[in-house]
Amino acid sequence: MKIDRLVLSEMDKQYRTNLVNSLPGIRGANLIGTINSITQQTNVAIFNSVTHIGANPPLMGFIMRPVSVQRDTYIHIKQNESFTINQVHENIYHQAHQTSARYSVSEFEATGLTPEFTDKIKAPYVKESKIKMGLRFVEELHIKSNETILIIGEIEEIILEDKLLSESGIIQLEDAKAIGVSGLESYYRLLKLEELPYAKP
Amino acid sequence: MKIDRLVLSEMDKQYRTNLVNSLPGIRGANLIGTINSITQQTNVAIFNSVTHIGANPPLMGFIMRPVSVQRDTYIHIKQNESFTINQVHENIYHQAHQTSARYSVSEFEATGLTPEFTDKIKAPYVKESKIKMGLRFVEELHIKSNETILIIGEIEEIILEDKLLSESGIIQLEDAKAIGVSGLESYYRLLKLEELPYAKP
Repeated sequence: MKIDRLVLSEMDKQYRTNLVNSLPGIRGANLIGTINSITQQTNVAIFNSVTHIGANPPLMGFIMRPVSVQRDTYIHIKQNESFTINQVHENIYHQAHQTSARYSVSEFEATGLTPEFTDKIKAPYVKESKIKMGLRFVEELHIKSNETILIIGEIEEIILEDKLLSESGIIQLEDAKAIGVSGLESYYRLLKLEELPYAKP
Repeated sequence: MKIDRLVLSEMDKQYRTNLVNSLPGIRGANLIGTINSITQQTNVAIFNSVTHIGANPPLMGFIMRPVSVQRDTYIHIKQNESFTINQVHENIYHQAHQTSARYSVSEFEATGLTPEFTDKIKAPYVKESKIKMGLRFVEELHIKSNETILIIGEIEEIILEDKLLSESGIIQLEDAKAIGVSGLESYYRLLKLEELPYAKP
């Protein structure tokens, strides 16, 4: 099946959203935790766009939708330059998904996830997550084509279970019961195929 | 285990690269196809950073490392504003991985993947892939923190097998034998858990 630009633009909106969201394949599901500096209200929301930007300095990025509607995550990050990224696993993906609903209270309270703090980072971690990063906001890039924003943070702290790390520093995602998400709704379990060596001609 | 900024900065380089690369969890594996306008040499390379930027207009992005060393993909995209994104599946991930080696000939030739052309897009598709997009380059954003570049393209054409689409437009990744990659080397098979409904309070 070939779908060109015209067919795509005339597609039912929900159908197009589903299709385009699932085109890039599987993505990590991560909970981003923030805190309001003034009210101290915590916030946690699921994102499927967390991407590795670089290892040294250690940088992660994620895409925010336009801030024309209120975006607590964005506001909090700008307030105190702090956020956490917490990987979702099989035992919490229902709660993680539920953070995308619009609540008037903290999504921690609404979904039963537990905020957890360290002395390095103002923003709350998700206690139930097994692979967590605390980050300091360093940069935002405004994408002109659709007014989304790439937020970039530098890792200040990593918290993870020792047994999930291989001898060479590779996190074992199947052992962590990590899941993947396609689009905004399809959740997948991961089964390790293999680690391939650095490619040479 | 807690790893702070100082420990991370003093870590063995390869260990840190492995750790930081695998922190965001699973990612899609995609082959990006380009062509040199002058020599007509084709190029195909694996990327794990392809991210959905928006559905309307339909936009995809990916991260390029610094262009200080020669980056054919970047040069070709700037030459003719055209590239393709081709999802990797279980039957081609060894070949896909091998595209990351440095060849003097086209990676198509070197790895046995087959270039395929349509009249909509100059850049070559990967014939063996089941889920493909042809894109027109629209924007590049320079990330100051580490000189990487976010390349954004608008989808001009989608090519995929009909049977992979659900009634609501969601691509069935397990049926496509789509795989995921963690870091630069760990490949995973996907098993569908479920599709969750739009979250409401």
